[in-house]
Amino acid sequence: MNGGDVLCLTLLDHGIDTCFANPGTSEMHFVASLDEAQDMRCILGLFEGVVTGAADGYARMADRPAATLLHTGPGLANGLANLHNARRARSAILNIVGDHARDHLPYDAPLTTDIESLAGPMSDWVGRVGSARSVQQDTSMAIAAARTGTGRVATLILPADAAWGTAGYEARNPVVPDALVAPSKDALDEAARHIRSGRRCLLLLGGRALRSGPMREAARIAAALGVGVLAEQANARCQKGRGSFAPQRIEYVVDKAVSQLEAFDVVILAGARAPVSFFKYPDKPHVVTREDTVFVELTGADDDHAEALRALREVLRLPATEPPLPDLAGPVAGSGPLDMSSLTQTVAATLPEGAIVCDEAISYSHAYGNAARAAASHDLLQLTGGAIGIGPSLAVGAAVACPDRPVLSLQADGSALYTIQALWTQAREGLNVVTVILSNRRYQSLYGELANLGRTAPGRNASTMLNLDNPALDWISIARGFGVRGMRVDNAENLAKALTDAYRAEGPVLIEAVLAD
Amino acid sequence: MNGGDVLCLTLLDHGIDTCFANPGTSEMHFVASLDEAQDMRCILGLFEGVVTGAADGYARMADRPAATLLHTGPGLANGLANLHNARRARSAILNIVGDHARDHLPYDAPLTTDIESLAGPMSDWVGRVGSARSVQQDTSMAIAAARTGTGRVATLILPADAAWGTAGYEARNPVVPDALVAPSKDALDEAARHIRSGRRCLLLLGGRALRSGPMREAARIAAALGVGVLAEQANARCQKGRGSFAPQRIEYVVDKAVSQLEAFDVVILAGARAPVSFFKYPDKPHVVTREDTVFVELTGADDDHAEALRALREVLRLPATEPPLPDLAGPVAGSGPLDMSSLTQTVAATLPEGAIVCDEAISYSHAYGNAARAAASHDLLQLTGGAIGIGPSLAVGAAVACPDRPVLSLQADGSALYTIQALWTQAREGLNVVTVILSNRRYQSLYGELANLGRTAPGRNASTMLNLDNPALDWISIARGFGVRGMRVDNAENLAKALTDAYRAEGPVLIEAVLAD
Repeated sequence: MNGGDVLCLTLLDHGIDTCFANPGTSEMHFVASLDEAQDMRCILGLFEGVVTGAADGYARMADRPAATLLHTGPGLANGLANLHNARRARSAILNIVGDHARDHLPYDAPLTTDIESLAGPMSDWVGRVGSARSVQQDTSMAIAAARTGTGRVATLILPADAAWGTAGYEARNPVVPDALVAPSKDALDEAARHIRSGRRCLLLLGGRALRSGPMREAARIAAALGVGVLAEQANARCQKGRGSFAPQRIEYVVDKAVSQLEAFDVVILAGARAPVSFFKYPDKPHVVTREDTVFVELTGADDDHAEALRALREVLRLPATEPPLPDLAGPVAGSGPLDMSSLTQTVAATLPEGAIVCDEAISYSHAYGNAARAAASHDLLQLTGGAIGIGPSLAVGAAVACPDRPVLSLQADGSALYTIQALWTQAREGLNVVTVILSNRRYQSLYGELANLGRTAPGRNASTMLNLDNPALDWISIARGFGVRGMRVDNAENLAKALTDAYRAEGPVLIEAVLAD
Repeated sequence: MNGGDVLCLTLLDHGIDTCFANPGTSEMHFVASLDEAQDMRCILGLFEGVVTGAADGYARMADRPAATLLHTGPGLANGLANLHNARRARSAILNIVGDHARDHLPYDAPLTTDIESLAGPMSDWVGRVGSARSVQQDTSMAIAAARTGTGRVATLILPADAAWGTAGYEARNPVVPDALVAPSKDALDEAARHIRSGRRCLLLLGGRALRSGPMREAARIAAALGVGVLAEQANARCQKGRGSFAPQRIEYVVDKAVSQLEAFDVVILAGARAPVSFFKYPDKPHVVTREDTVFVELTGADDDHAEALRALREVLRLPATEPPLPDLAGPVAGSGPLDMSSLTQTVAATLPEGAIVCDEAISYSHAYGNAARAAASHDLLQLTGGAIGIGPSLAVGAAVACPDRPVLSLQADGSALYTIQALWTQAREGLNVVTVILSNRRYQSLYGELANLGRTAPGRNASTMLNLDNPALDWISIARGFGVRGMRVDNAENLAKALTDAYRAEGPVLIEAVLAD
């Protein structure tokens, strides 16, 4: 048995049976081990951003880690942007990064890089397998790191000689993740005191507080005592749609977020961080809450939000009666040209029950979120770290984790182009992913940012950098090139029909929605 | 005038008038400044790997830096793999990486990352603009770093507030790069002593020693004294083809390289490093030279190779007579199915005079290099760092630097898929790039590596990770999707015709060469 074999066994021992991969020569012994492991499912990404984005989507839906397999520093580098998003999403991922044999590193062969330096900023844990003999121990530590709390990004560097060397393996009980942390009595009392004081209080939910249990408890408190409830601006996963108590989100636009939050004297954080401006602008604040806002951390990201919110309700002496559902009109498919309203309403109206929506709609994201509040019950996965280029890959991972659920990839055209190779993995694995490309043929959000500087008529260089025209991307051809059936629509009626057909079809479909605005 | 304006002026002062870009919100003030700069040419890449790969191609052909514009840590991360190749090529590149305003960093907004940690491994120099007032000084330092010696990768982090803040600018003489270092007398004498001693000597050329001047001098010494001449395994740029004294390269395969080098007692390095194995294998050596080989460094990468080799010839009392050109039969276009011989011969036979060849042919690279030795005169640009996924982007940069020269992008299919978005930039900029996709529908080199482990019949998981079929990529559609005309050929006659037509056409063309083997 060699180190690669032991690595494989250790992964399987801990329930890691899915490996998103793009291997190279230094990983070849481990590839041979994976080839022997009948219980392991390897899935190829044609680019490493696909691999890591898929692992993120998988973790968000499976609530457990997949492995990634990446080739040395440059392979890891290609996957870092989506690991950044995964880390911000607190997704559990175990990256296995192949490296040169230890005694070859001093020769500085062409692919030699400082993998630790590259991995650090986008990993919560970085380690290196010491030798073939320590593979089991080192891998177990890495898995424990990945499974800490809600989840972490753990990166384990695997020198080639640790994979090919003779290794020992001992059947062991797998590491059991820590139980969720119960709420602190002090935090409960402080939150309750503020709520009872009559000051305007907001429950700000993030992370796994956006699952149905904690959201229902928050809604009970809100309904009984007039406490506000909001979600963070971007969320790893939120259970949304009809029957859900999902709150509205903090807006991305600084002024709008400030308006949303200015009424609140106290912000009680449940799995959320104190909200800050996504970017700083010369004349705008760093944070979107009032300067005198009082913050209470009820639960940290890894804590037991459902239990904490239940306990808070009990401290507040409120019954477990079912809170009233938000009174929302269901979305109605639009008509005519595709604009922000007709498109988002149509997409929301046609959403099938139990769908998973990967939202990289960027400038359409907010409107879609509102339209979908009364859509069929679904999970919404968002861009958590602001590193665009995750949508098609996130959809791969979500579909692999949940093969029986339809996946909608609602995708801005500019962002889609970063890891568009994910379409091929969707085709190869026969994933039920419906991609809607929001085709406005420019980086719309940057147009807005430039206009805010007073530049509403960009010149040559700005137009060059902000427009995606000349030539326009031909999305049907791109999809076909990667083995995915594509179609183009430019009005809401055809979009509705295309979506309905696409959800019924087996395998992936791409719909280019040509936007009128 | 703000910091962005001053940055722009400083770039132009130093002759940096091309900016490969993929900007985001934090760079918007600098984008506005670029929009005012009529002498600056901005070129959009749809993905940052395109941006950095293009900057590398530009630097190799222009012998001066372009700027890149990248958006925060994730944008830089997406460009790192090709910066790795650029750094190994000693290309001059100035990366400008936008970041949050300095006083926004402590808020850890979603896109906050440790840019220095990410940039370090793939940069020779990393700096951060201190404030708007120091933009001119900081940028000048970064440019000086990029222009050190043959060239360096310099990464300058630009906080948003340094771009929007009021800045001073003072017209100054630009930094003049250091003159090339003259050869050391000791090294000359030592090299000459070995050559005269009768021991078997090899002149190993790398970097800019592979330009016509130094190669001619090396050929004079070789012809007169029976000294061997070789080039490094992968080279940033080599002037090749008919009339060139380009030597053969050290082979990639360890055993073959060992055979090439075992006759030599002494290796005299001119711009080259002592050759090592690209990867370490359990039963093979770290280095491909004999253990008792004596190394003499005649010139380092940044030194004046032409002068050193001329001086060595004079120390050896050899005349400046024209050495005999290698007696090579010109390539002859092949016929029938496309295999390693017919494809490489056909590509070499049809190569137009003055072409630039970007070689990411991977498993076909060696055969092509041999076939092209007597092709029309051309420059050959290779994969210097082993980070696959540079070819289509390298071609963009080469074509931008040399608009009057045809560019051939000889491209393995697997590697092509990493930064395939470069095709769109080729289309938008109307670049004369002819891409030949070597379509064998698998990672052929990894098949070879796996076979070396005794696995000639990969199972389910290995096949999943090594094959590019099911579905096969449809290259004509991919090209069309990005605005490039594509065609498919499966025999040498049609390949020759397609190539001839493509070189005559304006703008980019992609030819999928379906390989029989």
